[in-house]
Amino acid sequence: MSVLYTNARLMTLEGEGLGLVDKGVLCTEGTQIVYAGPADGFTAPGGARVVDCGGRWISPGLVDCHSHIVHAGTRAREFGMRLEGASYEEIARAGGGIISSVMQLRAASQEALLEQSLPRLDALIAEGLTTIEVKSGYGLTIPDELKMLRAARALGQKRRVRVVTSWLAAHATPPEYKGRNADYIREVALPGLDAAHADGLADGVDAFCEGIAFSPEELRPLFRHARALGLPVRLHADQLSNLSGGAFAAGFGALSADHLEYADAATAAAMARAGTVAVILPGAFYFIRETRKPPIALFREHGTRMALATDNNPGSSPLTSLLLAMNMGATLFGMTVAECIAGVTREGARALGLLAETGTLSAGKRADLAIWSIGEPAELVCNMGLNPLHRRICGGVAD
Amino acid sequence: MSVLYTNARLMTLEGEGLGLVDKGVLCTEGTQIVYAGPADGFTAPGGARVVDCGGRWISPGLVDCHSHIVHAGTRAREFGMRLEGASYEEIARAGGGIISSVMQLRAASQEALLEQSLPRLDALIAEGLTTIEVKSGYGLTIPDELKMLRAARALGQKRRVRVVTSWLAAHATPPEYKGRNADYIREVALPGLDAAHADGLADGVDAFCEGIAFSPEELRPLFRHARALGLPVRLHADQLSNLSGGAFAAGFGALSADHLEYADAATAAAMARAGTVAVILPGAFYFIRETRKPPIALFREHGTRMALATDNNPGSSPLTSLLLAMNMGATLFGMTVAECIAGVTREGARALGLLAETGTLSAGKRADLAIWSIGEPAELVCNMGLNPLHRRICGGVAD
Ligand SMILES: [Zn+2]
Ligand SMILES: [Zn+2]
Repeated sequence: MSVLYTNARLMTLEGEGLGLVDKGVLCTEGTQIVYAGPADGFTAPGGARVVDCGGRWISPGLVDCHSHIVHAGTRAREFGMRLEGASYEEIARAGGGIISSVMQLRAASQEALLEQSLPRLDALIAEGLTTIEVKSGYGLTIPDELKMLRAARALGQKRRVRVVTSWLAAHATPPEYKGRNADYIREVALPGLDAAHADGLADGVDAFCEGIAFSPEELRPLFRHARALGLPVRLHADQLSNLSGGAFAAGFGALSADHLEYADAATAAAMARAGTVAVILPGAFYFIRETRKPPIALFREHGTRMALATDNNPGSSPLTSLLLAMNMGATLFGMTVAECIAGVTREGARALGLLAETGTLSAGKRADLAIWSIGEPAELVCNMGLNPLHRRICGGVAD
Repeated sequence: MSVLYTNARLMTLEGEGLGLVDKGVLCTEGTQIVYAGPADGFTAPGGARVVDCGGRWISPGLVDCHSHIVHAGTRAREFGMRLEGASYEEIARAGGGIISSVMQLRAASQEALLEQSLPRLDALIAEGLTTIEVKSGYGLTIPDELKMLRAARALGQKRRVRVVTSWLAAHATPPEYKGRNADYIREVALPGLDAAHADGLADGVDAFCEGIAFSPEELRPLFRHARALGLPVRLHADQLSNLSGGAFAAGFGALSADHLEYADAATAAAMARAGTVAVILPGAFYFIRETRKPPIALFREHGTRMALATDNNPGSSPLTSLLLAMNMGATLFGMTVAECIAGVTREGARALGLLAETGTLSAGKRADLAIWSIGEPAELVCNMGLNPLHRRICGGVAD
């Protein structure tokens, strides 16, 4: 079954920029793109169904390459307390902080997790999302971490969307392992990864590398094991201080290092050499009132690829909009329109190791498309709160 | 026709805070609220239709008390140019800046204005908006300013929403009056106001008081004339420098003074005495990367009322979400959850002179309601990009 999208303008994202085609057509066969380019000279297969796009823009379906969208409960109450002037100690005494998310996660069933996470996924899908990465990391026991990844897989059954999972047991040290990071890695993160891998639940491995979390040394056995299993790694790196986490991740051929506010030139260079994508997360920067910005200029200079993602999570980035993530990337960090749009398409796909499948409008890739009622690409980045999505097509199927 | 909303939690906004009622009911008759309060002891009129809210929260319908939602075209291209490093001169040479909005406005028909503005209004309505203020100010000729207000009135015909209009001819000096502000006020702003008033198009008068716009002295004849016509005034004041614009507005009994980043204690005190509401506009602060925050602490200290609004406009605040405006008020300015929610309900209504009609859940007021699928009020402020509106009721009629 062929579909021919005519009278369209394309952001193909092929090459380095937006890959714009003014008078374009896009042709799909089944789940795949077979042509995306100038209308001139292209002859559609006989019998193709024609969809007139009325001059609208087509981009690749959006990719959120960093999310904690599976979680339980909210942290809105502690947000309110902080605004009333409560200190971190008072919030902790009132049961707030990440431990609050851990306790709510452990108490929630897999079904409850699914039900609570669906509205967040639906908000992203309503903006043209076709691929999302989802992490574990609030269970911090083997069964609770597996429960999170099963809920993530279930999201991909409930909605037409590609879900990529990450084993993030090394997100925080649970109270029962306080001060015993190495024990936690050995007794929970490593054997849990084997269990997740055996059940096909983990597409990759992530960790939080920070003074308040895990050091590169503590994470080395975990990343070695991931690579031995053939799983790609990614890392929460250099967000609050410079531990050269991005360079450490690059040393394991990581698909991405994420946050990176404190990354330096050596890290940017190491990441560029290894092909490790810098995933920029402006939602967390904005929400927790960080002041140190990620070194966008260094990434440009060294040719480090940049993706943009929501980092959706209840504590530091309750953001369920890639359009807003783009606006923040531009407004807060000075990323260009082309960098922002590439960040939630081509580079997001690259950060998930999926660039051969999605992220650009290219013959042979999956027909993951977003059709936008806009006059020019910059409108996707400039507006705040307006969703100009006309139609989403995921794997060749329109919503 | 009576409707009884049962099994609800209420943010009545009565009194100074959120006016929370845990086990509440709300009863409407026709277009009006007849009861909002504890379920205990309330007996509904016979024959009332019962709507079970399933434990959801009801708040007053939202009020956007400062918008330029009627405008033509976008300024997304100049946004993109700025990110590429273009200077203000280069952007101006490329036809950017406010003059670009003026030229696009003048070229647009009233019907085109309506059509372009509806998606913005719809985005706000989808979040529970029931009242919106809409300004002229991009036409800068009498016929073009009147055209804007007619389009604003037409929005109120096309959608179930209360539209309050402001005559904002004194928004900028058009090129043909360059350097002749007083002539522009005398020849355009004043006679145009008479024309707008004669046609019932202006519910109030606004102006932009700033070094780059109009001085208090230049605005005095306009505000005097507005008051002589019986029209309330409001003012864009003290955004980029301190001209004591807020105090000047208070001297005319202004309903509101808006922006106020540079307002001082004397202005806060004068506004509190006059009952002039401080309208906080974090969207513009965020979008144009201001660093000077409005003096929230001074407003609290002096008892100056604070509203929150979108300032939706193409150049400095392309924001069509009051939920995001609340998040920005909290995240960027430290406004509390109660201040944010009051800012888009009770205080927004006060800033429009409509507090007797809407803005709180009170017997005798219009049944303007928003029903939310949330666990607690703070979720309305904390989340970014998630719209938990369950249903909107405007003037007793559910969408
Ligand atoms: Zn994260
Ligand atoms: Zn304004």
